[in-house]
Amino acid sequence: MHPQSEPLLIVISGTSGAGKDSVIKAMQQRGLPIHFVVTATSRPKRPNEVEGIDYFFVSRERFEEMIAKGELIEHATVYGEYKGVPRQQVMDALASGKDVILRVDVQGALTLRQQFPQAVLIFLSAEDLAEVAARLENRSTEEAEELRRRLDTAQWEMEHLCDFDYWVVNRRGQLEQTVDILIAIIQAEHHRICRQRGLP
Amino acid sequence: MHPQSEPLLIVISGTSGAGKDSVIKAMQQRGLPIHFVVTATSRPKRPNEVEGIDYFFVSRERFEEMIAKGELIEHATVYGEYKGVPRQQVMDALASGKDVILRVDVQGALTLRQQFPQAVLIFLSAEDLAEVAARLENRSTEEAEELRRRLDTAQWEMEHLCDFDYWVVNRRGQLEQTVDILIAIIQAEHHRICRQRGLP
Repeated sequence: MHPQSEPLLIVISGTSGAGKDSVIKAMQQRGLPIHFVVTATSRPKRPNEVEGIDYFFVSRERFEEMIAKGELIEHATVYGEYKGVPRQQVMDALASGKDVILRVDVQGALTLRQQFPQAVLIFLSAEDLAEVAARLENRSTEEAEELRRRLDTAQWEMEHLCDFDYWVVNRRGQLEQTVDILIAIIQAEHHRICRQRGLP
Repeated sequence: MHPQSEPLLIVISGTSGAGKDSVIKAMQQRGLPIHFVVTATSRPKRPNEVEGIDYFFVSRERFEEMIAKGELIEHATVYGEYKGVPRQQVMDALASGKDVILRVDVQGALTLRQQFPQAVLIFLSAEDLAEVAARLENRSTEEAEELRRRLDTAQWEMEHLCDFDYWVVNRRGQLEQTVDILIAIIQAEHHRICRQRGLP
């Protein structure tokens, strides 16, 4: 008899400015057999972003059609723009036996928990809110007004920490250590008894 | 704000012949900041064993005194001999902030769960019972009668798998991989939200 665990749905969320995108990019570079979900968004592409890799960039009209047709597991309006998780992409990856990693905001993570109670919810944060502010200020595209709004959001997000399964702090300059912890969590979750099929 | 998790009480148990002793020895060689509990036993020392490292070897009279004085967290009669976990040793290690690893039989793990609901229970097994038999036969001190008894016990133990948190298979020739998984479980458990102190 062998443990044979179901594929995991891993939700990476947490405070704005915690470095979710950098962490996920660093994980992708490890070459693990994990499907990283590409989110759909209606917001404009930033210069360094690539269609189909960073996001699927779609028009507001197409996005609203996706909502209407139930093509999204979860969607939200973030800073005035749509973001959402394509359902088919997630289902196909899980069906192929691969673990799936999603990146959503805190509100989205809480919505996903209701649909997928077995999902692994990981809350990523910076060391503290001062650190969040410093990171956001380094984004040249950030306006002062939006910075203040993001800090308010980060505060609200920290208050929902307890609804998650794991809390990982992405310390400045320790990106690879953060990735190591996430991989340990995934490895451990595969050995949890509650996830095993065909128990005696 | 930083995650600050409580020290863990990690209980390694599982089928007889799963290689618990070898796994724990290999973990000790990693030099981690973990306290490995030395069990007290009334059984005779085997030639390759060292007092205070493999076990505390005590007389039956002294063992019965330890039971009477409540000096053991858990004790059991295993193959006609006493084995038990010294309470003070565990409490001192946890109080110093160290994770503690215990090795007990399945019955003992279930008893520990009642006293320490927050303990992390890991079930270690060989790949299958045929593998258990092969390992036990390699122990020259093993009598045929005892081998049969141990196999019956291993069967009973597998039936209690579901009472544990994690299941790790110690595959033949993959001792270091088994240790890697145990370390990943410990690292992940330190990041579980339910173990964090001083949440917002």
